Amino acid sequence: MSDFVITTFDWVPELPRGFVRDIRLRWALEEAGLPYKIESTPFHHRNDEHLAHQPFGQVPWLTHGDISIFESGAILLYLAEQSPVLMPRDATERLKVIEWLFAGLNSVELASVPWSIFMFSDDTELTPGRKHLNDFLASRLRHMEKILAQREWLASTFSIADIVMSDALRLVDRFDQLEGHPACREYVSRATARPAFIKAHEDQMAFYAAADEVAR
Amino acid sequence: MSDFVITTFDWVPELPRGFVRDIRLRWALEEAGLPYKIESTPFHHRNDEHLAHQPFGQVPWLTHGDISIFESGAILLYLAEQSPVLMPRDATERLKVIEWLFAGLNSVELASVPWSIFMFSDDTELTPGRKHLNDFLASRLRHMEKILAQREWLASTFSIADIVMSDALRLVDRFDQLEGHPACREYVSRATARPAFIKAHEDQMAFYAAADEVAR
Repeated sequence: MSDFVITTFDWVPELPRGFVRDIRLRWALEEAGLPYKIESTPFHHRNDEHLAHQPFGQVPWLTHGDISIFESGAILLYLAEQSPVLMPRDATERLKVIEWLFAGLNSVELASVPWSIFMFSDDTELTPGRKHLNDFLASRLRHMEKILAQREWLASTFSIADIVMSDALRLVDRFDQLEGHPACREYVSRATARPAFIKAHEDQMAFYAAADEVAR
Repeated sequence: MSDFVITTFDWVPELPRGFVRDIRLRWALEEAGLPYKIESTPFHHRNDEHLAHQPFGQVPWLTHGDISIFESGAILLYLAEQSPVLMPRDATERLKVIEWLFAGLNSVELASVPWSIFMFSDDTELTPGRKHLNDFLASRLRHMEKILAQREWLASTFSIADIVMSDALRLVDRFDQLEGHPACREYVSRATARPAFIKAHEDQMAFYAAADEVAR
């Protein structure tokens, strides 16, 4: 069987390091113990080959033999089909993983990522829209707090849904905005204490540190 | 086989009518010609039964026999497994539908929904964060324009990916912000001219008009 190949940017600024989305794929592949390689595409020039694999000029994309897939959510679902460690085979549990995968991406991250755009811009002005955006995130966190107070992982075991949800909440935690949400914080701690996350995170940081060396 | 049951709010304000997310499920079920029923849950009181089906207190959720699923993306994927009209059975085409489904939700809608929160608030103040948010959406639209200029539907035939993507772009079009993006506008027109969309939209509007009558 051919290797899984993750393509990510050859360099990124300091700010996104540790959060570039290839981390979700590295994490999943480490959890599953599947062999993979990392390749890179220029950050400063989104060429035609890049756009052929990832039409928004973003990263990551995954290749596996003749297959090329973009969107980390779609890639995680593809990887989960390769290993029961990432998604149980039982039909009911499988559905639970899939609904929580979408919830992480389209309910929580839909609120947290735009909110982070304002936070990264040091933009604290409470305009009417910003107030609604803050309330939107606060509502999502309030619901997640209740849910996570009652369970260890979103489905019966750790899955791709937890990779997405904990990574989405980790971004909120980066700005110390999980205060008052102890169950969310403990969930992030629990997820990021997993050896597969630690390895994925260290590898991404080392990859960009090495890129700095080359550029120097 | 048991019917599909979509649960939505019993009433919503004027603003979201025609855009409540049950429309995506109605649309898919109409396309597939699968029988379904509509049930409702109180808009003004998110009760425990509601939260048991949909942990964020949102709508819709779908039941099908013993199965209950939330997140419209997850539900569309579940429905697509029931009908090749919603997702081709060929493995490569299937992957294409799935990656574009996630792209609609996590690349385009991640930009368009938060942007719409500001638009609905009549918030036009160009703070630094807002400028980045506008640029984020503009970049997504620029890429979608190139993609849609070259194809009729995202995969080889109409699929659940088009339901999500065209509905996400329809929200942008609502604020006349697809000007300068003719391929995106034509795509929205093409999708919303489908009999299944027209039926789904009319049914949702009629459902809330009837709710007003009851309230009167």
